[in-house]
Amino acid sequence: MDTKILKLEDFLTEFYESAEFPTGLAESAKYSLLAGGKRIRPLLFLNLLEAFDLELSKAHYHVAAALEMIHTGSLIHDDLPAMDNDDYRRGQLTNHKKFDEATAILAGDTLFFDPFFILSTADLSAEIIVALTRELAFASGSYGMVAGQILDMAGEGKELTLAEIEQIHRLKTGRLLTFPFVAAGIVAQKSTDEVEKLRQVGQILGLAFQIRDDILDVTATFAELGKTPGKDILEEKSTYVAHLGLEGAKKSLTGNLSEVKKLLTDLSVTDSSEIFKIIEQLEVK
Amino acid sequence: MDTKILKLEDFLTEFYESAEFPTGLAESAKYSLLAGGKRIRPLLFLNLLEAFDLELSKAHYHVAAALEMIHTGSLIHDDLPAMDNDDYRRGQLTNHKKFDEATAILAGDTLFFDPFFILSTADLSAEIIVALTRELAFASGSYGMVAGQILDMAGEGKELTLAEIEQIHRLKTGRLLTFPFVAAGIVAQKSTDEVEKLRQVGQILGLAFQIRDDILDVTATFAELGKTPGKDILEEKSTYVAHLGLEGAKKSLTGNLSEVKKLLTDLSVTDSSEIFKIIEQLEVK
Repeated sequence: MDTKILKLEDFLTEFYESAEFPTGLAESAKYSLLAGGKRIRPLLFLNLLEAFDLELSKAHYHVAAALEMIHTGSLIHDDLPAMDNDDYRRGQLTNHKKFDEATAILAGDTLFFDPFFILSTADLSAEIIVALTRELAFASGSYGMVAGQILDMAGEGKELTLAEIEQIHRLKTGRLLTFPFVAAGIVAQKSTDEVEKLRQVGQILGLAFQIRDDILDVTATFAELGKTPGKDILEEKSTYVAHLGLEGAKKSLTGNLSEVKKLLTDLSVTDSSEIFKIIEQLEVK
Repeated sequence: MDTKILKLEDFLTEFYESAEFPTGLAESAKYSLLAGGKRIRPLLFLNLLEAFDLELSKAHYHVAAALEMIHTGSLIHDDLPAMDNDDYRRGQLTNHKKFDEATAILAGDTLFFDPFFILSTADLSAEIIVALTRELAFASGSYGMVAGQILDMAGEGKELTLAEIEQIHRLKTGRLLTFPFVAAGIVAQKSTDEVEKLRQVGQILGLAFQIRDDILDVTATFAELGKTPGKDILEEKSTYVAHLGLEGAKKSLTGNLSEVKKLLTDLSVTDSSEIFKIIEQLEVK
């Protein structure tokens, strides 16, 4: 497995095993944190830093871990009976099925708070920590992920325009996929202009990611997906596939990924870098 | 009404009305934020700053609002059917009764993220913001409130020792009641020693607050309490009243409040200050 993923998982395990946290809470948080995600967000961040010629340090894993924790917490809450009511996630029982609903709510909550503690204790300048805190909270709360989730639920069973779908995903998944780009720019002390260009890259990648998700919901099996496919149709969700057709969605995905690579090249990221490989793996044949 | 409370409520209202947040989310967050709490945590913080001779500014309301938002979010989640399953809070329908469960989960979530955005945009030095972020996340997540809530739920129906009860409340309510003291010390740039003394004051006040809560659950009416009294007995919770008796609990409350006032006096807070009045109002006759 990728060394970066191992280091990230070590960091997450250590955090929940080092302090005297209540066993029930730490076990529940660790269960979901170590349920085998692809770690795309932290990998984007860490590989971008390397593409910017930084040597990775513990402080960078603080940022990567904070990001992955919020993503994981949001999956736990999304799976709850009152939300998407999913029994499986990544091929394993969802948190509330493995433990119980109250524990799952609290595990999600703690995975929303602890990242800000971890960020605040990273060996980085106070200015950089404040900028990262602002961006992470912006990506997660009423400006981002949670707002997108409310809009997504409100849109179920309704015919949404492509613009409305894009708005939902720009917030729900796009913001947290944009964070690794913006955060890498902040940590590498890029100019404000470059950070804003990185934000644009992240936004396009976020869009590509959602199109990919919609495609896989139609084409993948349970084993490939690690969760029940075909849920979008079942829940009458408006998707890119519904709007563009399967071939149209695939074409749009390829176009967006190409744009991401072009913009990164403009920012002096070479196409031999790991980050390019990650982006190429998002293609669906 | 206290000018500070009005200013705080204006800040909270403005935040949820200023940006283009989804209506459902902003309405739900505002409903619980403006449901008439006593604002004890922000008032402790703001009045301590004044006792330290600081002139209150907008930045201080960023901190006060962040604190009140996390407290409110935690009440929304505590009231959920999977948790305490309460229909009323402060005499009004709980968030999930007024809206629905999914909205209540997400309103709570957003009230956990947005405070860190608000903190990060306060007009304070980066060093102070990082210290406040660390303390607020420490008070809320696996080191604090959420950990206490897990322990509290695990303890229901069990006979707990007084030490176990104290451990639960030290985390569940104590940490967030300690934050205003520590935060005031940080903002007023007190020495590390003084900040730690303020932490001790907060911890004793947190304990006093819980004893008071246990007393009121036995002695107060629905109208006085704004929620159903007698729930502790119904849920077989171990309380201070159960351990110490009603008179013993009252005596312990008075003793702890006296200790708080003594320690504050040692920190040069005069007994004519507003903060003393707040503390005296916590007495139960």
